Amino acid sequence: MAETQVRIGILGCAEIARKVSRAISLAPNATVAAIGSRSLDKAKAFASANNLPPDAKIYGSYEAVLDDPNVDAVYLPLPTSLHARWAVLAAQKKKHVLLEKPVALNAAEFDTIIEACDSNGVQFMDGTMWMHHPRTAKMREFLSDKQRFGQLKLINSWFTLGVDPEFLEKDIRVKPDLDAQGALGDVGWYAIRAILWAADYELPKKVIALRGPVFNEAGVIMSCGATLYWEDGQIANFYCCFLSHLTMDLTAIGTKGTLRLHDFVAPFEEHEASFYAGTALGFNELVTAWAPQPSEHTVTTHLPQEALMVREFASLVEAIKVKGSRPEKKWPTISRKTQLVMDAVKVSIERGFEPVELGS
Amino acid sequence: MAETQVRIGILGCAEIARKVSRAISLAPNATVAAIGSRSLDKAKAFASANNLPPDAKIYGSYEAVLDDPNVDAVYLPLPTSLHARWAVLAAQKKKHVLLEKPVALNAAEFDTIIEACDSNGVQFMDGTMWMHHPRTAKMREFLSDKQRFGQLKLINSWFTLGVDPEFLEKDIRVKPDLDAQGALGDVGWYAIRAILWAADYELPKKVIALRGPVFNEAGVIMSCGATLYWEDGQIANFYCCFLSHLTMDLTAIGTKGTLRLHDFVAPFEEHEASFYAGTALGFNELVTAWAPQPSEHTVTTHLPQEALMVREFASLVEAIKVKGSRPEKKWPTISRKTQLVMDAVKVSIERGFEPVELGS
Repeated sequence: MAETQVRIGILGCAEIARKVSRAISLAPNATVAAIGSRSLDKAKAFASANNLPPDAKIYGSYEAVLDDPNVDAVYLPLPTSLHARWAVLAAQKKKHVLLEKPVALNAAEFDTIIEACDSNGVQFMDGTMWMHHPRTAKMREFLSDKQRFGQLKLINSWFTLGVDPEFLEKDIRVKPDLDAQGALGDVGWYAIRAILWAADYELPKKVIALRGPVFNEAGVIMSCGATLYWEDGQIANFYCCFLSHLTMDLTAIGTKGTLRLHDFVAPFEEHEASFYAGTALGFNELVTAWAPQPSEHTVTTHLPQEALMVREFASLVEAIKVKGSRPEKKWPTISRKTQLVMDAVKVSIERGFEPVELGS
Repeated sequence: MAETQVRIGILGCAEIARKVSRAISLAPNATVAAIGSRSLDKAKAFASANNLPPDAKIYGSYEAVLDDPNVDAVYLPLPTSLHARWAVLAAQKKKHVLLEKPVALNAAEFDTIIEACDSNGVQFMDGTMWMHHPRTAKMREFLSDKQRFGQLKLINSWFTLGVDPEFLEKDIRVKPDLDAQGALGDVGWYAIRAILWAADYELPKKVIALRGPVFNEAGVIMSCGATLYWEDGQIANFYCCFLSHLTMDLTAIGTKGTLRLHDFVAPFEEHEASFYAGTALGFNELVTAWAPQPSEHTVTTHLPQEALMVREFASLVEAIKVKGSRPEKKWPTISRKTQLVMDAVKVSIERGFEPVELGS
């Protein structure tokens, strides 16, 4: 291949690593260089089941991946409670970091990751795939168009998942020592990110959690939501849940237009994705029909969004490696804002649904 | 025509009366028997512009319509502040009442209307047209199906309208002496009704208004919202607004299914309407697409929803008139619940966004 191949090592054999290892193979500028697991057998089985390249190194520890000089960057699909330890260590070993979401247990912990990446000059990016779909860029064009969308007023985003009894008992996302943020850290991460994306990453001024969050016996959030308020009057609602049917919605209403889609995190189809845009919508004379009506916009993509994420990450890594560029700050900044809102939701719940002012 | 024609008088020449007078003509069991306005010329102009039947009486006062022995029932499209006076008087004159929404300025005032209807044995129905669309019945089947929808968890409904500067200055819905409930009484009525409909009319236990409602200079609500809480953990969000782009959404999420539509108040098309139902949705193995995906359900209707509303109202009137049936209590009960939630939203705003417990 003509392009440089950024060599990525994978730490752990999590389910999501299957999708991302395929994405690394699909990305034209990246390759899986190594896989490490605490169990060598598990790593071997993963490599063979997921068609890793024959020359990919297979290690029986995470450290071995970080010590491999042929590894440029690592993908970390570990449980959140292990993120700080392994992301910091990866950065110290000068490996660029593609980190699964949620990035950390709280913003303070995330800051240790970012400090390690900064001081070691490595790129950080979180694993929020839909950010990289061309549909997302197309939707941004609509939201940024003052003539078509106007000024943003209301955002609604929710991501709910109906999990099975086994998940509720055994998944890492119900365990306080693994993914302690539960539904908020998992599906909630996406809903909050979508709101921040729609608000062009302007942080809300105030966050108020909804009443009635549901916790499991271990105290992990299974269901919660919040209302977000901006200084200029914008409002957003989000809701996340493991206890209801799979739904992922994003709606943004402006003074002149409305944007909506129902598969913002993972498109219904791999190679094409749609959104609905309405602008200057209205009714016919007797209000017996709409004229005009919202229109559907379909965006096709040769590479799925997870491969586009890897391509973007690898191209930033390559720029640092080959051209001596500085790491792109946009990605860690967005991750940190998402974490800040998550933290504020938790604080609001702890304080009995009181408003929590957001700093920066 | 074979069917009995219920003879309906219209009080006032409001814009909405144009749509409803056409609906009365379209309904097989109703006819416009009279139109009354404070100005005889206006009533004449309305009759001619809207193709009222040649034998429809044209009156220069509302009283004259109520005194006409050939009028069985009245449609009242008057500003809300006049509802109690004219609906009570209509009931006292033994006219059945089809009342435009919002039904009253508050539940106590609505109770005077209902008492008058009850004690005079006349039917009451409010003018919420979408209740009568066959799509609504089809959606109810889905929500009631425990296998497909499961237990209701989350409802979201919002109806926003981007009105023009003239509306903001002159419309009755910005005037404290006419439609004092502003956006809450107008578009908010629909959003609240939709939530109650989805919840099978079980009232929420608690209502908490969102912060940052917008009032015009006269103190009328231009924008507000609230979160509704039920005892069993159900949550609903609603938002209503005159200051953003036309959007009307209803989403209901259960444990096994999701229902959604984007034109619940007034369908995109007059003779067919769709909704999306998803049940047991999920992802393919690597979460690169959905399998299965939500499906679109289209319901066709020969008569538009406003004509179906008139047909339903007229058939209840006819049953009372011809068979001596008792008035159907379902409709005033639903209206009252909608008004109770509206009242609670206002109280929550007045109390600084404190929770308001709902009685009955």
